[in-house]
Amino acid sequence: MATIRDVARLAGVSVATVSRVINKIGNVNSETAHQVLKAIEQLQYEPNSVARGLAGKKTGTIALILPDILNPFFPALARAVEDVAHQEGLTVIFGNSDGLGLKERSYIKTLKKKYVDGIIIASNTVNPEDIEHLRKDQVPIVLLDRGLDIPTCPIIRSQNREGAKLAVKHLLSRGCRKIAHIYGPQEMITARERLLGYEDVVEGLDWYSPSLAVPGNFDIEGGRKAIKLLLERQPDIDGVFAGNDLMAIGALKGLHDLGIPVPERIKVCGFDGISLAEITEPELTTIAQPIYEMGALAAKILIREINTGISENTIMKLDVTLIPRKSTWKEGIDVDEA
Amino acid sequence: MATIRDVARLAGVSVATVSRVINKIGNVNSETAHQVLKAIEQLQYEPNSVARGLAGKKTGTIALILPDILNPFFPALARAVEDVAHQEGLTVIFGNSDGLGLKERSYIKTLKKKYVDGIIIASNTVNPEDIEHLRKDQVPIVLLDRGLDIPTCPIIRSQNREGAKLAVKHLLSRGCRKIAHIYGPQEMITARERLLGYEDVVEGLDWYSPSLAVPGNFDIEGGRKAIKLLLERQPDIDGVFAGNDLMAIGALKGLHDLGIPVPERIKVCGFDGISLAEITEPELTTIAQPIYEMGALAAKILIREINTGISENTIMKLDVTLIPRKSTWKEGIDVDEA
Repeated sequence: MATIRDVARLAGVSVATVSRVINKIGNVNSETAHQVLKAIEQLQYEPNSVARGLAGKKTGTIALILPDILNPFFPALARAVEDVAHQEGLTVIFGNSDGLGLKERSYIKTLKKKYVDGIIIASNTVNPEDIEHLRKDQVPIVLLDRGLDIPTCPIIRSQNREGAKLAVKHLLSRGCRKIAHIYGPQEMITARERLLGYEDVVEGLDWYSPSLAVPGNFDIEGGRKAIKLLLERQPDIDGVFAGNDLMAIGALKGLHDLGIPVPERIKVCGFDGISLAEITEPELTTIAQPIYEMGALAAKILIREINTGISENTIMKLDVTLIPRKSTWKEGIDVDEA
Repeated sequence: MATIRDVARLAGVSVATVSRVINKIGNVNSETAHQVLKAIEQLQYEPNSVARGLAGKKTGTIALILPDILNPFFPALARAVEDVAHQEGLTVIFGNSDGLGLKERSYIKTLKKKYVDGIIIASNTVNPEDIEHLRKDQVPIVLLDRGLDIPTCPIIRSQNREGAKLAVKHLLSRGCRKIAHIYGPQEMITARERLLGYEDVVEGLDWYSPSLAVPGNFDIEGGRKAIKLLLERQPDIDGVFAGNDLMAIGALKGLHDLGIPVPERIKVCGFDGISLAEITEPELTTIAQPIYEMGALAAKILIREINTGISENTIMKLDVTLIPRKSTWKEGIDVDEA
């Protein structure tokens, strides 16, 4: 029976292009599309029925494995995955891995045994071999938010590095002249990319020193401790870019404890765009990831692979947006005064 | 083969008492315990091996169905269930039902097919018939937080009505003389009990009027809208008890928008004790449920039933605690000034 690879070979295009034609997504020029469709006809390729060799065996359940349900970013992602799955008549079951490789693999094993149709996972321990194993077992997988830098399966995350640059440039434009960074665990690609984005902007500047970057563990308590450490080291910082909103909220809390006014003396910007960023006082400026779109896209791509057997092995980086709020801005204070 | 009912009959005690003796929990007087143990011996009752008639069929997976993962109360509950399950070598899979009966039943059906060993559910739609069906299928169930008022299975929640009374009495003790209540959806027993607790305290007081209670949908936006409605109706309120922390946070936000100082002019108390209550400005006074203990207890009771086949059909109401913070208290303002 013909495979998608046979179709690609005959049409003289990549597997990804064949996939785009079949699934009617992205831009394929009409000449190429014609070649692909001709090859499909000639080889009598049937993406739907051959999909995973599992016709009729579907269970109507997909799994979503998240690293930390106490960080509201992940329930918000889950919300989106569930909405899309539900529209398609699928049930989502969740796992909370604490970001531990052992628990992630145990979930994958358990869920495979329970015959889920596919898995979406936010993981920094999944490796190409894990994906290869799942592929052999015909279990589609999509990596969401955290994951590899090699697209052996669909990978969806946001423009972390670009977003970090946006944050630091915003703080500069608000008059900050010594900007610190509180970063997340560096085994996570999201945290690494945000640190890189910070360095991209500040490394050439005369006030920059590597001691301006401190770890904050991606949680509120970590952010609170980090700001205190920063102020001991560098009492004259006037801006903080935190690698996620929870650490930024912790930093706001720490600054409040110390009686340091935000935004007057220190401006703070987070990253994520979780709804909590609106309930702090002052409200938190942040780089918003399109959280709902990320979750929804992951679900759509997984469901498409379940239905067609065709995997889109690309990294999709979704755009982020600066949302300026009171933590970097106050009426009556213009940039020069700040 | 003897059942726990046979043992109870022979010993002349209730099934719950037999269960307490077997599981070594609660207080049973030694005379009764002796009778039970004698009956067990006489009937050769074996709780472990006969459990559910399912020896060897266990899957090592339990399910937790939550109504709203965007309310941080539920991820915190899930955290506890997972910790306990993990210690016992079990995997937890989650479902998010949006509190919809249709989705809850669909989850139960899906999870039963996937052979989970038991289900913990926070639901206000599960009825005694649902529980009877699960029992026939030998799937243990524990109701957590939301649920029935008839103990046909183990039910765990906190002292909602007592907690509400505690909140209102605290506001009175802080000098409030016109206290409003923002209540949650009344199909939920938790929301109903908290409204009742409010009414218990205020109904006899001369300033009380039913228009002081308004709905807030258990979310931030609902709380924000509710406080605005309240101030239109009753501009002279000086205290607000919100039926959960999210609505209290919304009320704080709404009051901040209107430029009304908290706690100077209006004092606010929430209910739940989620960690968000510490990041608002001012920090939120709240009635803390023992969230972790509730989740952990639910897991322990479910796992015990899975292992022994013995169900504890009682309602367990855990104690709540007042946590006074700045939203009802400010240094330099004593009760008479407030």
